[in-house]
Amino acid sequence: MAKINRIIKTVEDVEAAFYDAIGRGDIDALMALWAEDDEIVCIHPGSGRLLGHAAIRTSWEEIFQSGGVRIHPVKLHAIQNLMMSIHNVIEEIISPHGQPDDIHVIASNVYLNTPKGWRMLAHHASVAPGKAPPEPLPSLLH
Amino acid sequence: MAKINRIIKTVEDVEAAFYDAIGRGDIDALMALWAEDDEIVCIHPGSGRLLGHAAIRTSWEEIFQSGGVRIHPVKLHAIQNLMMSIHNVIEEIISPHGQPDDIHVIASNVYLNTPKGWRMLAHHASVAPGKAPPEPLPSLLH
Repeated sequence: MAKINRIIKTVEDVEAAFYDAIGRGDIDALMALWAEDDEIVCIHPGSGRLLGHAAIRTSWEEIFQSGGVRIHPVKLHAIQNLMMSIHNVIEEIISPHGQPDDIHVIASNVYLNTPKGWRMLAHHASVAPGKAPPEPLPSLLH
Repeated sequence: MAKINRIIKTVEDVEAAFYDAIGRGDIDALMALWAEDDEIVCIHPGSGRLLGHAAIRTSWEEIFQSGGVRIHPVKLHAIQNLMMSIHNVIEEIISPHGQPDDIHVIASNVYLNTPKGWRMLAHHASVAPGKAPPEPLPSLLH
């Protein structure tokens, strides 16, 4: 398993590094962001459940055979305490032409605060029909 | 919003109550199991993201119009600390004839330890192709 020595101080940093590694198709960088134990869980859109480093690594290697996948996580909905954080995001998939694809993917990302900083514990992604709804206009009522 | 006064002492209790309420199509019992704040998230299989009590309640009311849905959560994969717990399960959907349907649904259920006991914070369900894989045989190697 790939290791990284630097402490990842915030959930935002590990999430940014996660989508950056997917965009570059960098399997070692990606796998280094997961918690070290084999409790980790990954569910790709329309796929079954993968448990543990070996199965999860193999699945991303297959995805990366055709290169990285550019994803912008948007519309973050975060729930956090000192030890664990759940980020629910809409994954905006960017086509090779630089435009958002008309696909609507939702991801629940669970992060754990480990002695080495924040790491990914679970990634559950699924597809919803149609395009992702537009960002709501800011409300004037508070 | 429906309230329950009893303290739910364990994650297992709130998860059992969640699937029991779905099986009976009991909207008030179901909604009382969620955390009280509007941070709650629900994603039904093949559907978009719902945030907050009102939207989540409406979605379950629509599902329950044709009655409850009997679901056995199996193959629990749990990650827990004192304040939060993530249960990843395979949802075995039971047909009206009492047999498991040939549908393979995976759910990530996030629970929060609140002053009133454990409550549901997020439910993310998605469909995978084919039947759910059989329970693995116990390994002889330890």
